[in-house]
Amino acid sequence: MDRRAFTKLATMAAGAAGLQGSGWGETTEGGRRLGYAAVGLGGISDIFMRACAESKSAKITALVTGHPEEKGEKYAAMYGIPKSSIYTYAEYERLAENKDVDAVYIGLPNSMHCEYTVRAAKMGKNVLCEKPMAISSAECRTMIDACNAAKVKLMIAYRVQYDPTWIQGIQLIKDGFIGELESFQGGFFNQQPKGVWRLNRKLGGGGSLLDVGIYPLNAIRHITGEEPAMYTAQVATRDHSRRFAEVEQSLEWTMKMPSGILASCGCSYGQDGPSFLTINGEKGFLQFEPGFLYDGVHLTGHAGGKTIDILGTGKAPFQFAIEADYFAQCVWENKQPESDGEEGLKDLIAIEAIYKAAGTPIA
Amino acid sequence: MDRRAFTKLATMAAGAAGLQGSGWGETTEGGRRLGYAAVGLGGISDIFMRACAESKSAKITALVTGHPEEKGEKYAAMYGIPKSSIYTYAEYERLAENKDVDAVYIGLPNSMHCEYTVRAAKMGKNVLCEKPMAISSAECRTMIDACNAAKVKLMIAYRVQYDPTWIQGIQLIKDGFIGELESFQGGFFNQQPKGVWRLNRKLGGGGSLLDVGIYPLNAIRHITGEEPAMYTAQVATRDHSRRFAEVEQSLEWTMKMPSGILASCGCSYGQDGPSFLTINGEKGFLQFEPGFLYDGVHLTGHAGGKTIDILGTGKAPFQFAIEADYFAQCVWENKQPESDGEEGLKDLIAIEAIYKAAGTPIA
Repeated sequence: MDRRAFTKLATMAAGAAGLQGSGWGETTEGGRRLGYAAVGLGGISDIFMRACAESKSAKITALVTGHPEEKGEKYAAMYGIPKSSIYTYAEYERLAENKDVDAVYIGLPNSMHCEYTVRAAKMGKNVLCEKPMAISSAECRTMIDACNAAKVKLMIAYRVQYDPTWIQGIQLIKDGFIGELESFQGGFFNQQPKGVWRLNRKLGGGGSLLDVGIYPLNAIRHITGEEPAMYTAQVATRDHSRRFAEVEQSLEWTMKMPSGILASCGCSYGQDGPSFLTINGEKGFLQFEPGFLYDGVHLTGHAGGKTIDILGTGKAPFQFAIEADYFAQCVWENKQPESDGEEGLKDLIAIEAIYKAAGTPIA
Repeated sequence: MDRRAFTKLATMAAGAAGLQGSGWGETTEGGRRLGYAAVGLGGISDIFMRACAESKSAKITALVTGHPEEKGEKYAAMYGIPKSSIYTYAEYERLAENKDVDAVYIGLPNSMHCEYTVRAAKMGKNVLCEKPMAISSAECRTMIDACNAAKVKLMIAYRVQYDPTWIQGIQLIKDGFIGELESFQGGFFNQQPKGVWRLNRKLGGGGSLLDVGIYPLNAIRHITGEEPAMYTAQVATRDHSRRFAEVEQSLEWTMKMPSGILASCGCSYGQDGPSFLTINGEKGFLQFEPGFLYDGVHLTGHAGGKTIDILGTGKAPFQFAIEADYFAQCVWENKQPESDGEEGLKDLIAIEAIYKAAGTPIA
């Protein structure tokens, strides 16, 4: 480690990670913002739309919803969208004619991601799609092919690639402050109440692994730059509350990378637990906890002989604003997003392997 | 949860766990302390002897060592032990005649635990043995049988059963503050330098799982009161430093309890990582980190609607003093220790199953 790296560490060690740390300015193209159609107006789209309102390079210009007169008109009024730019799902293809729409933001249930991405690509619209990219690797490949054929950008809305606190932590690793990477332990646990689409296999495509387990999985793949070579897994659906008839409640798994880096992770839809990732190296370790919430990401550990304590100061939906801005840049500068379709596909390949190891095929 | 439990929670939530929280007073029997012979004078025995010096109910009264003139005389001088009570291993059986020795403290390499326990039992001496109890379940059974036949007490020197911070956390669980238990994630990672007995299979009997992985394993078994029914595991010995020719470097595993409670854990002799346990319930979670170090055990989480933050205030070797005092009570009151031989045996049964799942038999 050189002196410059040490100085950076000293500055970072006890500092706070702010939005300014993201490295992406809020640029516009000739004063114009990238116009997004929000597809599906559930909770996550609500957050994304709020983020666009805070952004200088992104803007919601159209809405696609099953409830045009309720949700549609409400959000149109909030964000200054003309009524003529509210569409039902049946009218989705009319987005093609809307010149204010450069991209779609897919905030739909998992099983609809593929179809609405492919249809957007056919209209020549760029696609920012929520994670999981889809409910199978086959669907991911269909989405990638459709976007390539249409020459539109496809980005999956992961966060560790863009969140300032995560970027700082990953930089510490790249700078060698914890030495050679050796192992990861992580998880994401929450409670999904009866009746939500996530508990419906047709809509969710799977259970907690697809929705929350994907966070530590994606982070580990991103940080190591490796694809897991071996998996083991155990699933448990204790279902005290009779709501897990269709998807798994909890899962714990291990992964081994080709280099020998090990990982163990867990996820659940039936636990009030943390979201975290512990990253162990030969010479130090980092812990993100909470790691995958919208704000308050907290990085602690021991690296380069120093105690690390970095608290993310960005307030939700700042991460979504970064996402929206970054994707706008990718579109304008014809740049492949870091979390592109291939990245989403690799997670689905891993997820299928984990379900297989658990004896619970995804389909 | 009743009001009394809530009041207790409110008192505990932001409090510090001190020695007084252990529940075991420092009693003596008619003013006499329990006399321990320290068997093996390595690092852990050094700590145990310091603890006895701080204790009112325990006392080091004899030493067994391969270096009677160096280590033996040094510690004899420190703790006021007559030279006649320093023994070599060949003279071990002479402890039988030493009326000041009520018990032996076995601080030897793992592979010697069984032999020196059995020989102590035959002399009618009680046995406080370091973890892991032995290097195989067969050895554990031999030790239990020998102590039962000789009617002496046998305790394994685990700590979560006796550490005040752990006891407070476990009480929160028992009082229902995190609801039904659902999953655990844990680990213990350190670096073992070239040349230590832990890297020698003949002495260690195995690698990191036996020595540090046993901590989260034992804690999970203790807290759930269940024996794991299914295991998966992956081992990795990357060995950048050429010191893992005989024992495994790192291991990650999952366990499923008969009730469906899941766990994933990791351990390593080649990582500078944390020691931790995350305990997830239906209604809250607790995290011990550091969880398995000699002092500074830190319990955080969310339980009963409150943020939990309890920092252990006892300074090493306070945990060992509790251990020494507790075992003295067990001997005087003819009480079976909570972490008895059966408890040590169950960990070895689990460890053998984990090694088997990893494709790395223990023998």
